[in-house]
Amino acid sequence: MELTAWVNGRFLPLAQATVHIEDRGFQFADSVYEVIACLGGVFVDLEAHLTRLARSCEAISLPLPMPLTELDALVREAYARNPFTDATIYIQITRGVAPRSHVVPANPSPTLVVTVRQLVPPPRDELVNGADVISLPDIRWQRCDIKSTALLGTVLGRLEVQRRGIDEAFWLDTHGHVLEGCSTNVFALIAGRLVTHPLDTHVLGGITRDMAIRLAGEHGITVEERPWKLDEPGLTECMMTSTTTAVIPVTHVDGRAIGDGRPGDFTLALRGWMLDEFDTMRRQETA
Amino acid sequence: MELTAWVNGRFLPLAQATVHIEDRGFQFADSVYEVIACLGGVFVDLEAHLTRLARSCEAISLPLPMPLTELDALVREAYARNPFTDATIYIQITRGVAPRSHVVPANPSPTLVVTVRQLVPPPRDELVNGADVISLPDIRWQRCDIKSTALLGTVLGRLEVQRRGIDEAFWLDTHGHVLEGCSTNVFALIAGRLVTHPLDTHVLGGITRDMAIRLAGEHGITVEERPWKLDEPGLTECMMTSTTTAVIPVTHVDGRAIGDGRPGDFTLALRGWMLDEFDTMRRQETA
Repeated sequence: MELTAWVNGRFLPLAQATVHIEDRGFQFADSVYEVIACLGGVFVDLEAHLTRLARSCEAISLPLPMPLTELDALVREAYARNPFTDATIYIQITRGVAPRSHVVPANPSPTLVVTVRQLVPPPRDELVNGADVISLPDIRWQRCDIKSTALLGTVLGRLEVQRRGIDEAFWLDTHGHVLEGCSTNVFALIAGRLVTHPLDTHVLGGITRDMAIRLAGEHGITVEERPWKLDEPGLTECMMTSTTTAVIPVTHVDGRAIGDGRPGDFTLALRGWMLDEFDTMRRQETA
Repeated sequence: MELTAWVNGRFLPLAQATVHIEDRGFQFADSVYEVIACLGGVFVDLEAHLTRLARSCEAISLPLPMPLTELDALVREAYARNPFTDATIYIQITRGVAPRSHVVPANPSPTLVVTVRQLVPPPRDELVNGADVISLPDIRWQRCDIKSTALLGTVLGRLEVQRRGIDEAFWLDTHGHVLEGCSTNVFALIAGRLVTHPLDTHVLGGITRDMAIRLAGEHGITVEERPWKLDEPGLTECMMTSTTTAVIPVTHVDGRAIGDGRPGDFTLALRGWMLDEFDTMRRQETA
């Protein structure tokens, strides 16, 4: 079955899905996006993703190309038209086509693109080897709270990760605080509390980050949103979250072991709670 | 006469020039570019622009899609195929098409796009009203020495400029030093010396910036590349440079007059020297 994408008003085969070379998404990264997981027909936090997309649009003064209810229906139809049980749905909105100029068009016709790709769901079995990570000084822009496609800083981080044959890079601010990863939010267990950087302009408000905070709270773990460092006394576990991977234990940062260098008990518990929640969603869908 | 663009190996009508929606230039701003002025058939500093393009590619580990000698010929052919005497030639190189993933493709087939647009050459007559500018805290990424399309920070600066009905925004570092404008380099005349921020990762090495520094030196003006602030004692003139506008006097920043609030004598002289140089190039071409 051929893959199908949505571009500006119609579905068409992915292979034929194009945008004009003077689209401002292509020439200026003048665009925002979301990636939504769908597990067996269940969209994980679809409403939260669409709400964040609307917020990203507002932050760059870009009108939504259609109301959120229609975007919701479009995401569902894009999933239905593609051959995957578990999938990621990618939505991108740009400021549309205009002759290249630094002058921002006052009344743009936004470009809307939706693609669907297969998702390998997070495996249930224990992750015997956790992730090996490096820390890098944050070179990205100062509005990482906007989920934009101005991602070249992230690409350079990923290139460094791939050169070293490891798994992820954590961005550090100038004081050495852990902000987030290239495509993850980051948490530490410090003196038994779950700690993560507060939401500000350097951190994306991750949907899976929210879920992790909620699940920890529901299981009696105190959550602190505050700046933190990798060398803090009492730091015993480290983990990262994302839409496509749920929770991943981090066992080494910059070559140094976190705790005993094995996935932490709390991390694995949190992962289990999250995968349980996905299973519950799936059962409700089937019922 | 129809406009003609180059996309990946062929010339075609601009209206039909597209890239795939999974081009990494579109989804990750994983791309670099140049804008080159051509005045009456004379390319202004073409070699310097292509050298900088190669440097930008190298900085993001992106192979050049063709040798610089071939790129040079391609720029000339793109100009010849379009109906403008004075034109800007836009070249963009991306990491090509790949299913969307943060994993950077190891052996990409780069996308190469060239477009040509009419250029209104900098007018010879005096600019009676100089530019009105604001200063903004720099929100862009930390590698502005790479001429990349991750330009959303610049777009947000331009939006603020347009909201206020003024001409340009200057980016300030956390100490209040003037780095550069949204699409310009910035200079001040301080105690009779021409001052501009040194080249580092926060500033693009502008080709017109280089020309301004050379011309000032040739006319006996001392040039200092050092951090500077708008409120420095002895600051009498301010100006900005770019490929498409040469030299523009800045007469007001954040509502305050620079000097007597009129274009400065040195600024207008520098502009004249630059336009003379363009005229000399044109005459050599015609001869």
